[in-house]
Amino acid sequence: MEKKTDLQDMLNQLGETYQNRMPFHRLLGIRIVSLTPDDVRVRIDMREELIGNFVRRILHGGVISAVLDLTGGLIAFAELVKHLGAVPPDELAKRFARAGTIDMRVDYLRRGTGEYFIATGSVLRRGNKVAVIRTELVNDQDLLIAAGTGTYLII
Amino acid sequence: MEKKTDLQDMLNQLGETYQNRMPFHRLLGIRIVSLTPDDVRVRIDMREELIGNFVRRILHGGVISAVLDLTGGLIAFAELVKHLGAVPPDELAKRFARAGTIDMRVDYLRRGTGEYFIATGSVLRRGNKVAVIRTELVNDQDLLIAAGTGTYLII
Amino acid sequence: MEKKTDLQDMLNQLGETYQNRMPFHRLLGIRIVSLTPDDVRVRIDMREELIGNFVRRILHGGVISAVLDLTGGLIAFAELVKHLGAVPPDELAKRFARAGTIDMRVDYLRRGTGEYFIATGSVLRRGNKVAVIRTELVNDQDLLIAAGTGTYLII
Amino acid sequence: MEKKTDLQDMLNQLGETYQNRMPFHRLLGIRIVSLTPDDVRVRIDMREELIGNFVRRILHGGVISAVLDLTGGLIAFAELVKHLGAVPPDELAKRFARAGTIDMRVDYLRRGTGEYFIATGSVLRRGNKVAVIRTELVNDQDLLIAAGTGTYLII
Repeated sequence: MEKKTDLQDMLNQLGETYQNRMPFHRLLGIRIVSLTPDDVRVRIDMREELIGNFVRRILHGGVISAVLDLTGGLIAFAELVKHLGAVPPDELAKRFARAGTIDMRVDYLRRGTGEYFIATGSVLRRGNKVAVIRTELVNDQDLLIAAGTGTYLII
Repeated sequence: MEKKTDLQDMLNQLGETYQNRMPFHRLLGIRIVSLTPDDVRVRIDMREELIGNFVRRILHGGVISAVLDLTGGLIAFAELVKHLGAVPPDELAKRFARAGTIDMRVDYLRRGTGEYFIATGSVLRRGNKVAVIRTELVNDQDLLIAAGTGTYLII
Repeated sequence: MEKKTDLQDMLNQLGETYQNRMPFHRLLGIRIVSLTPDDVRVRIDMREELIGNFVRRILHGGVISAVLDLTGGLIAFAELVKHLGAVPPDELAKRFARAGTIDMRVDYLRRGTGEYFIATGSVLRRGNKVAVIRTELVNDQDLLIAAGTGTYLII
Repeated sequence: MEKKTDLQDMLNQLGETYQNRMPFHRLLGIRIVSLTPDDVRVRIDMREELIGNFVRRILHGGVISAVLDLTGGLIAFAELVKHLGAVPPDELAKRFARAGTIDMRVDYLRRGTGEYFIATGSVLRRGNKVAVIRTELVNDQDLLIAAGTGTYLII
């Protein structure tokens, strides 16, 4: 049980860093709604600056791909944290600095209309070096707006 | 010759809209460096808000995918404009509102270090409904940072 | 009820064509295990000719991508058939001849060991012109071997 | 000069293995037309068994993706061989057995008509563990039929 607390502590720290200390995440205004071993959810609220098409007033595709990419990266790193068990914070920070997206595909399925959006995902594979994550973005009506698949380096 | 002027006029308007009237493009701070029938180049300058990893101080992957996506879309639409010839501005605006990315792949090849970045691309295929565009992002040392392939709806 | 029979008849014909009349499908040796409105499954049996690496004796990646591609295409076209309702066989044949894959991503997740493999998939989006399908390939131990996402033209 | 000979010898062996000892490559009937440090070309001849659509008599998309995948893999491994320099054949065989495609995107650009097809490619990035390769398939009229991007494990 203690170990579980440690894991959740590490995930909380990871979420705090992700949401508040990464400049572009702050610019987008993402919020980590949930970050537990079994549930990762990232929220982004619509606002003027995130609009792509000023006629249709929809979320810019670049915002969508950014949110899917960062959500996939968060899931990949959380998966790594789960399997590492207790490691010193320094070690974790080093690994976090090395981690990154290798490649990603995004499918834009519906226009990004809505007041807010939620990104989730699932692990297709976690290897020693590489994790493959599938992600989805839904709007406030739970309509699927976009889907992604990313390959992430986790060493 | 007159026709060529018309085409360049239309491209200039497109570039102006792309750079200054699309809110997320303004948030990113992109600049259309060149937009002629044969040469499309988009520039983005590094700044604090675009950083992903605060330790490594590199361009966020989400910025990279956004810039490659919007550059590919610009090239696809410029290609459409070239082949449409002279059309009323209304017609062009309608088509622009309908256009969009269907899907995209991004390969992150090197860490995004540099003071500025230039995105370019080339047309793999222009069909009646769909265009496929390959894109690249280089830094101020002309090092290839990322490459993309996108499928765009142009109807 | 009659309409449902018609639909299943059309799907049966589609499956028969897919399995027995397309030369490369015969070369691979695929079998349509199920083709109903709610369940599409394609099987391929391991055999000597489908091996990639002669040392590891695993299914060639090219076989995997081919099976995921053709399964995604089958699901996309079955989805079209479901929504078209009763159409003359000629019309259906014309549409089938026009249909095709626009692009696809494949993630190779585990080595392709096994005596047989089953491909399934789900519809991410069905539009008027384009369908997006996610696919999976599992082996005889139900281990996920590969995953795909394809964009298909259905007009 | 001796070293160059060694390198070309290793590439020749690699090509021989690729073309003649991998069962699925034999089933497809590929031929390594060129395999030097600067030029890799793979050819496949059209024949009845490789047809997808029996109405249009065009190359099956699964054949196209298989040829682009195996060409990208060949280029990635040849690149590794170039940078390893002289290594014992055993070491090379071990590395070859470990190598593999991580993921791939294929864009189907034109119908696969023609009597033969040539696949080529170029290295986007060669890292310590991963190489990213862009590939193209043209037909006997030098028309671009398909393009690919693959991420390959080379350790």
